Amino acid sequence: MAAEDKKNLEVCFTPKLFPLFVTTDCITVVVDVLRATSAICTAFDNGIEKVIPVASVDEAKEYLGRGYIVGAERGGEVVEGFEFGNSPYSYMNDSVKGQTLVISTTNGTRAIEAAKNSHQIAMGSFLNLNALSEWLVEQNRPVVIFCAGYRGRFNMEDTLFAGALSSLLLEGGKFDSECDSTIASQSLYDSAKGDMYKFLENTSHRNRLHRLNLEQDVRYCLELNKANVVPVLVDDALVNMI
Amino acid sequence: MAAEDKKNLEVCFTPKLFPLFVTTDCITVVVDVLRATSAICTAFDNGIEKVIPVASVDEAKEYLGRGYIVGAERGGEVVEGFEFGNSPYSYMNDSVKGQTLVISTTNGTRAIEAAKNSHQIAMGSFLNLNALSEWLVEQNRPVVIFCAGYRGRFNMEDTLFAGALSSLLLEGGKFDSECDSTIASQSLYDSAKGDMYKFLENTSHRNRLHRLNLEQDVRYCLELNKANVVPVLVDDALVNMI
Repeated sequence: MAAEDKKNLEVCFTPKLFPLFVTTDCITVVVDVLRATSAICTAFDNGIEKVIPVASVDEAKEYLGRGYIVGAERGGEVVEGFEFGNSPYSYMNDSVKGQTLVISTTNGTRAIEAAKNSHQIAMGSFLNLNALSEWLVEQNRPVVIFCAGYRGRFNMEDTLFAGALSSLLLEGGKFDSECDSTIASQSLYDSAKGDMYKFLENTSHRNRLHRLNLEQDVRYCLELNKANVVPVLVDDALVNMI
Repeated sequence: MAAEDKKNLEVCFTPKLFPLFVTTDCITVVVDVLRATSAICTAFDNGIEKVIPVASVDEAKEYLGRGYIVGAERGGEVVEGFEFGNSPYSYMNDSVKGQTLVISTTNGTRAIEAAKNSHQIAMGSFLNLNALSEWLVEQNRPVVIFCAGYRGRFNMEDTLFAGALSSLLLEGGKFDSECDSTIASQSLYDSAKGDMYKFLENTSHRNRLHRLNLEQDVRYCLELNKANVVPVLVDDALVNMI
């Protein structure tokens, strides 16, 4: 494939940097590995029909008692008054099948909101790495991998996923990148992939989740290809494209 | 040294993220390896007395013809009407001795401007790595390493320097970091340090300088410890603290 036919691939490390990217013609992949996008992929893998991401807890509240599954998380914990947060384990059962989930999380759903002027928005996590990569190749469009970060800052786990996805897309030969963030994320993933759990040992978010006794969640969110799904925003809800 | 006595170390990848850092009690190390902070370190190493960083080309113009050495760079090139830009080689001669340099560059001097509410501002480059590290240890204050980036985005060469300096400071035992950017920069520097020039081969800024035939500058800016200087902002001018 000639270089000029290849599609551009970029990585955005945090929401603060997202306005520097022109995404109207792009598919933006929103990444919040710990744990919003991992939970959403898990919910679809367990047969959920639709996921409505909402930015604020107040918006989520409006859906309570109206036949929806409603999840709200802030600071790593389930918000008072809600049954679910953003643990993938909450959505790992047959009762979610055919249901609609409404979810608001600290960083993930805000990133979705910020990316709304993109051509399309897809959800990325280690759980759906291969499925997402294959789908992106088929779409034949430029891609921006948008790490949700933590409170606006760079975070490691989302960056590692950006590196994993970038490597797959660039190795496939249909994408090209002139973006230092892409190169950095690939190098970090190369250093980490032998044992991501250990690599993340001293990182900030993993330590926060450790204090909340969520080690099991972290381990699950770092597993590859457990969910053969590609959640994509259509109108105001995510649906599975495969 | 007890953990609570250690000083905090953080890395900020781009000016867009700098407002997220509280630096009033910190020493902020401004980093623009290619080439502003490398040129400034070289100028001090060749005996310049003072460097006045100015944010705009217009401000730099006001100093022309008034006994100053005046440098202005935009997009990697010397601005029309100026004799000097930000090539370290411009300042590698005896004629700069005892003079005052006024300089405005695309990213570097703007980062200095953005950091003005810090307790102190120092200049960092591979050329003064050890001198700077030793000086920072002596100051006994929290440190933010502030990468100037490229047009607001993450860039690789400044991040590698942040990794080199972070590693020295953390290994010394007097600093501590809970910042994912610090960990990332250290990991990237570990991957790159065997041959930084090669590691930077596909990065954006190195390619821009390659197109401008500035390979010799890039090679020089990646050399370690050629300049035993620590430029620090005092009032509105940089002076050498050692």
